[in-house]
Amino acid sequence: MRAITQHAFGAPDVLEVADVAKPAPLPSEVLVRVHAASINRVDTYVRSGALPLLGEPPFILGWDISGVVEEVVPGVTRFDIGDEVFGMPFFPRAGSAFAEYVAVPSRQLARKPANLSHVEAASIPLAGLTARQSLIDTAHITEGDRVLIHAGAGGVGHFAIQIAKAAGAHVITTAGAAKHDFVKSLGADEVIDYHTTDCTGHLRDLDVVLDTVGGYGDAAIATLKPGGRFITIVERTDLDLAHRVTAAGRRFAGVTVEPDYAGLERLAALAADGALRPHIQQTFPLEEAAKAHELVESGRTVGKIVLTMSN
Amino acid sequence: MRAITQHAFGAPDVLEVADVAKPAPLPSEVLVRVHAASINRVDTYVRSGALPLLGEPPFILGWDISGVVEEVVPGVTRFDIGDEVFGMPFFPRAGSAFAEYVAVPSRQLARKPANLSHVEAASIPLAGLTARQSLIDTAHITEGDRVLIHAGAGGVGHFAIQIAKAAGAHVITTAGAAKHDFVKSLGADEVIDYHTTDCTGHLRDLDVVLDTVGGYGDAAIATLKPGGRFITIVERTDLDLAHRVTAAGRRFAGVTVEPDYAGLERLAALAADGALRPHIQQTFPLEEAAKAHELVESGRTVGKIVLTMSN
Repeated sequence: MRAITQHAFGAPDVLEVADVAKPAPLPSEVLVRVHAASINRVDTYVRSGALPLLGEPPFILGWDISGVVEEVVPGVTRFDIGDEVFGMPFFPRAGSAFAEYVAVPSRQLARKPANLSHVEAASIPLAGLTARQSLIDTAHITEGDRVLIHAGAGGVGHFAIQIAKAAGAHVITTAGAAKHDFVKSLGADEVIDYHTTDCTGHLRDLDVVLDTVGGYGDAAIATLKPGGRFITIVERTDLDLAHRVTAAGRRFAGVTVEPDYAGLERLAALAADGALRPHIQQTFPLEEAAKAHELVESGRTVGKIVLTMSN
Repeated sequence: MRAITQHAFGAPDVLEVADVAKPAPLPSEVLVRVHAASINRVDTYVRSGALPLLGEPPFILGWDISGVVEEVVPGVTRFDIGDEVFGMPFFPRAGSAFAEYVAVPSRQLARKPANLSHVEAASIPLAGLTARQSLIDTAHITEGDRVLIHAGAGGVGHFAIQIAKAAGAHVITTAGAAKHDFVKSLGADEVIDYHTTDCTGHLRDLDVVLDTVGGYGDAAIATLKPGGRFITIVERTDLDLAHRVTAAGRRFAGVTVEPDYAGLERLAALAADGALRPHIQQTFPLEEAAKAHELVESGRTVGKIVLTMSN
């Protein structure tokens, strides 16, 4: 099968199309024919070597897939051949998504909502679960909470806005002026231009701040109410920041996403209800993975970038 | 750290105590100091080479653990240092349980119920999830269903009886005469001595038959009502049997267990309520893993066999 591999850490041009062995599903697994695979920022860090989650190259990058079950190992009862599924298999222990086939434990997959395309479904797992595990599982947001989401137009941010709204929160988000209409269309109640100096300095009494960018922890101390929760998906290991936040009487949590079929089923239900709409900025054929990586690294994306397979 | 390894497939005496590197948890993982690790029949098949899930030796066997969180990688928010947890990490892709420490994704663990010891909790994941994924997720048993569970005194069977009873089913089970009091104490409504020829031949109109032994598929056809469900955790790949069952108007499903933190949380809740009580036949210190394997292979166990760590 065709897959994207790399034989060295480096710039996007290390990514190459290769012919590799089709994976063989083990007991408890299904073989998925991948129709679409989305790209996340973490992929670019693994590719470059900044975050060597997969060890030394060669390896296959990527985690987010949507596709069709082509083979079911006897013993798996959650899916049948032909079922449309999506998921984030093996994160962070092994990549595999940028390929024509992936072998996946059945409980790392959920059914693709019928009202989403494979491209849309593939955009959800890593970014959507990051938002859900941050806001629901960690911050435990509830109806009426005042929630600030940094970079609401980004991959994680645009899911976070919709998840927070579905939970009944009052959502404030930051975005460049050109993206204000977009984040409002997702349900944001207030939008702040992050180009303005000290853009959130006037906010007070927030219940939750979700930082998807990095660098907003100290600003969050003054804007959160006492006991309020600062969640970062970036500075997870910054113990000094954690100390400053907690010393000020606010709570600190760094969040790393992980596979979560139950969470994925909740996201699928939200999408089926129309409450979670993925935004796809652009798709690229698998062969143009390097171009797609360049775009993701530009930081100028709105929503998600997705690779498609010609099968 | 100490761990049980093997350098060749073979009889229980291939198991040896070795000093191996302590695992390093990745992002999304915690390091668990293992207090107890239970043995399952599948372990003996992997050890002997009959089911080479882990490839060629050397490897560390085992999946079921209960222990204490000793290290939390920043980014994990489900657990804190000192939390008592249990789970079945990495089944079936990698072993790791028969060791002093295991690095585990946080969503492959659940909190140990306070009313269970580590030995009891370690006995639950693989056998308990097998029973739950068979009866609840696959057979979808509901209140009033008539359910036959073969070998109700075994590792999977004794959990299956309790899970079926908690779901409101009428439970019929097979067991040797010496074990009748035991399976009745778990809630079985009817007990049949499996030593009797054609022991279940008189049964009719069953909703579900769960075969934890193998060989009861054809007998199930007559005892199940039309549309009834035959679930086997043994002959998953027997397509001829599947055909005979479905040709007779009954449904067939083979079940392979897989990691399932949401299911594990349900089992923990049942145990906390007193509705799921693990039965431990015997414990062995880690160093006596070979003796423990011999006992499991004898087939004469009631409930579970558990290894304990002297830490």
